Amino acid sequence: MRTSHVVTFLAACAIVAMGFLTVSVRENKAEQAAIAATPTDIKPFESRSSEWGKYYPREYSTYMQTKQSDTLQDMLKEHPAEVIIWAGYAFAKDYNAPRGHYYMQEDNSTSLRTGSPDGAGKQSPLPTACWTCKSPDVPRVMARDGELEYYTGKWDKYGTEMVNPLGCADCHNPKTMELTLTRPYVARGLDAEGTLKAANVTHQDMRSLVCAQCHVEYYFHATKWTKDGEEKTAMVVTLPWNKGYSVDDMEKYYDEIGFFDWKNKFSRTPMLKAQHPEYETFLTSDHYRAGLSCADCHMPYVREGAVKYSNHNVGSPLDNIGVTCLNCHKESESEFRKLLGRKLQRKNELSDAAMEQVATGHLEAARAWELGATEEEMAPVLSDLRKASWRWDYAAASHGAFFHAPEETLHTFARALEFGQAARLKLRAILAKYGDPDYVAPDFSTKEKAQALVGIDYAAESAAKKAFLDGLREEWLKTAEKNGVYDPKSREGMGPRKTSWQ
Amino acid sequence: MRTSHVVTFLAACAIVAMGFLTVSVRENKAEQAAIAATPTDIKPFESRSSEWGKYYPREYSTYMQTKQSDTLQDMLKEHPAEVIIWAGYAFAKDYNAPRGHYYMQEDNSTSLRTGSPDGAGKQSPLPTACWTCKSPDVPRVMARDGELEYYTGKWDKYGTEMVNPLGCADCHNPKTMELTLTRPYVARGLDAEGTLKAANVTHQDMRSLVCAQCHVEYYFHATKWTKDGEEKTAMVVTLPWNKGYSVDDMEKYYDEIGFFDWKNKFSRTPMLKAQHPEYETFLTSDHYRAGLSCADCHMPYVREGAVKYSNHNVGSPLDNIGVTCLNCHKESESEFRKLLGRKLQRKNELSDAAMEQVATGHLEAARAWELGATEEEMAPVLSDLRKASWRWDYAAASHGAFFHAPEETLHTFARALEFGQAARLKLRAILAKYGDPDYVAPDFSTKEKAQALVGIDYAAESAAKKAFLDGLREEWLKTAEKNGVYDPKSREGMGPRKTSWQ
Repeated sequence: MRTSHVVTFLAACAIVAMGFLTVSVRENKAEQAAIAATPTDIKPFESRSSEWGKYYPREYSTYMQTKQSDTLQDMLKEHPAEVIIWAGYAFAKDYNAPRGHYYMQEDNSTSLRTGSPDGAGKQSPLPTACWTCKSPDVPRVMARDGELEYYTGKWDKYGTEMVNPLGCADCHNPKTMELTLTRPYVARGLDAEGTLKAANVTHQDMRSLVCAQCHVEYYFHATKWTKDGEEKTAMVVTLPWNKGYSVDDMEKYYDEIGFFDWKNKFSRTPMLKAQHPEYETFLTSDHYRAGLSCADCHMPYVREGAVKYSNHNVGSPLDNIGVTCLNCHKESESEFRKLLGRKLQRKNELSDAAMEQVATGHLEAARAWELGATEEEMAPVLSDLRKASWRWDYAAASHGAFFHAPEETLHTFARALEFGQAARLKLRAILAKYGDPDYVAPDFSTKEKAQALVGIDYAAESAAKKAFLDGLREEWLKTAEKNGVYDPKSREGMGPRKTSWQ
Repeated sequence: MRTSHVVTFLAACAIVAMGFLTVSVRENKAEQAAIAATPTDIKPFESRSSEWGKYYPREYSTYMQTKQSDTLQDMLKEHPAEVIIWAGYAFAKDYNAPRGHYYMQEDNSTSLRTGSPDGAGKQSPLPTACWTCKSPDVPRVMARDGELEYYTGKWDKYGTEMVNPLGCADCHNPKTMELTLTRPYVARGLDAEGTLKAANVTHQDMRSLVCAQCHVEYYFHATKWTKDGEEKTAMVVTLPWNKGYSVDDMEKYYDEIGFFDWKNKFSRTPMLKAQHPEYETFLTSDHYRAGLSCADCHMPYVREGAVKYSNHNVGSPLDNIGVTCLNCHKESESEFRKLLGRKLQRKNELSDAAMEQVATGHLEAARAWELGATEEEMAPVLSDLRKASWRWDYAAASHGAFFHAPEETLHTFARALEFGQAARLKLRAILAKYGDPDYVAPDFSTKEKAQALVGIDYAAESAAKKAFLDGLREEWLKTAEKNGVYDPKSREGMGPRKTSWQ
């Protein structure tokens, strides 16, 4: 054959191959379009995810797989120092590592933190705001009752309403399936910070921001309002982003408004409880700069025949390492896991060291008060303990931060360590002045010992909780089911109750 | 035209274009080959770089550009705490940030550390080993005198030999131009560590390992030997890699052999002086995992017409950011520099905090000794101070570590901070026991104050140094020139002497 004939032949082959490919893509698109065009009758604010699942079985069934993330990890048992740092706050009673989204409502209800209302006057110690990240019933009730009413009152006020675990309605528009912010504080936070105004968010931004509805730092801003002439106080979930997204920026914000979540029972420090500032930490990371969103790694695309969809079994990217981390990280899986091991080790070393110093500092401060130290003497100590506790908590509570943004995380722990030890150094001089220079803080090496120091009556708390769960809470679910609000399928296959206090 | 004609026409165009390209590549290769085939008469161990420059003018002239890196940055002035940490060691007298390779011999000779020998009995306090990273005369003299003889005696023993700054002969085979390890301790270190045996190194490994001849952690291993029946001690440069490359591994090695560089004058701590473990830190980094070598970023390729060569103006990749960092980092230059600024800030915060704690700890320990603290009481304090000082020094002395390997660097500073503050906490109890619970360490906020605390007679040291440089050192260079060893071109255009003590 002449050269031109060879070229013509090869070009013809390519054209045939492209033809086949085009047919395949068209079929794929056709099936996708058919799915997208399915008419749905999902109601506005439909909080029963199984109703959505009728139209989106792949997304729904993968969502339901979050049930498999069912290990209950008692963090207070693993880190008894946390009981000391959070002394006087509900977290000192009960704090477990998060399980799958499927368990959000359950774990919030069974936690000792939410208390044991009895329906006869005894209320939960926590405000309604504590439901805000737990259930798709939140936007439904907010829309019905108004935002300020929603944020007013105690947790048990909405016992018959907040019955379904985090689900479809938390992130999606029921008609268009578009990602949507169902919690108004996110848009307010973005606008207050100003870098990315809510009006300008892209689809890729949304693939992180729907997660940021919960995976952020927030506080309850006490807000006075009036209803029928009566003055009320709403505890409004608010993102402290006005000065920026960093750990220092948020501290500045809290300092300026004189905010504290509670006072540590030992040191009397006006404390900040960090929530789980994953989004903010992520913004400092190489992952963010690479253009990734939360969903890219935590909800990777799955291909089933002609259909591509996002895996709604939100969990660790390490469980799907082939389609998540190793898309970009070019190590072998074993090399990559070894590298992660080293990152985790670095983080744990600093976290453990900081936690130990901060907890010891709070206990030594208690001794200084006991011996008669003055407010003036203690002020710089409490300032250090506030800074140290905030930083330790910020880095520790931000799940996966050692992986998302290792540099920011290591730096934050190091600063926690610095302030914690600085407090202890100041305390040594005070303890010496008041005659106890060699004071050794009491042993808090187990959860039991630490909780005994705080004075938590674990047996009583547990018994009351059990009574609540077996009684009032069952009634709440029954009422909700009667009202057509509760989705029994949301608890299908849950198995026996799992708690850290049974 | 019919489709097949169009395809034929396009293919013909492509073939013509490829033809031109092939001719261009051939011409390029031909010029490169002509350069490579140039017969040279560079002698073995030729330490005068200008002799090499006759055949490799591009490499030589870019090497000579290291002259432009001429800013003298007095680190003790910037960080007076270093004077306290290094008290009793030569570094407390004089320590500047490194200038270009062109200045290696000069800056070693003008440093107060190397002392002021007078040729009439007064010797340098430092051993010959202190030349090892400064001059291509080192391999020449090692080959002539033998390695153990080279490492025996004081610095001034080789005043007439070590006259040229780091140059061609330090890294290249004079016949083949191949990269070569001219310092035998690197191969010994690699073999002792075992991961990468010296026999197995690749060309890419060598593009880092020739740098690792100096940019590593090392110590002087006292080695007995006998010459003509006389027992001598050689101070052999040795890489402490037997247990691994990490900061913890090397500390373990030093601890096991009971090694210390000196005892801190205040705290009496048996100290480790970290050198500049750039190579070891680099091994922990993403940059290393990405397959990079030192030369890829510090000696990027330059294209001049048909010739491609490696830029020998070794310096910061940030000076050539377009052909270094931004090859991989896809940010804009301004975004990238902003990111680096944040990395530097994180590092500086932890480095400064650790340095302050460690220095204060050494001074407080001096007070404890003064008050009568016992060896037994002080042992845990000194252990903490040794660990803290080693880690701070390791991370601080490893130039660019915050950039090469930020996670390892932040972690190392954090551990320095932890041990430094732990020492201070223990010291508070001891100071209280001996009646001075509120002891405040003296002010070391300026270099002058810090050096006064150490008791350095700066005026006398400076005067003696000046006399040495204007006298004996000038004679050394003249003798070396007479002997055909010294390359006057190596100091061409140096300009007036720059030191931190004038």
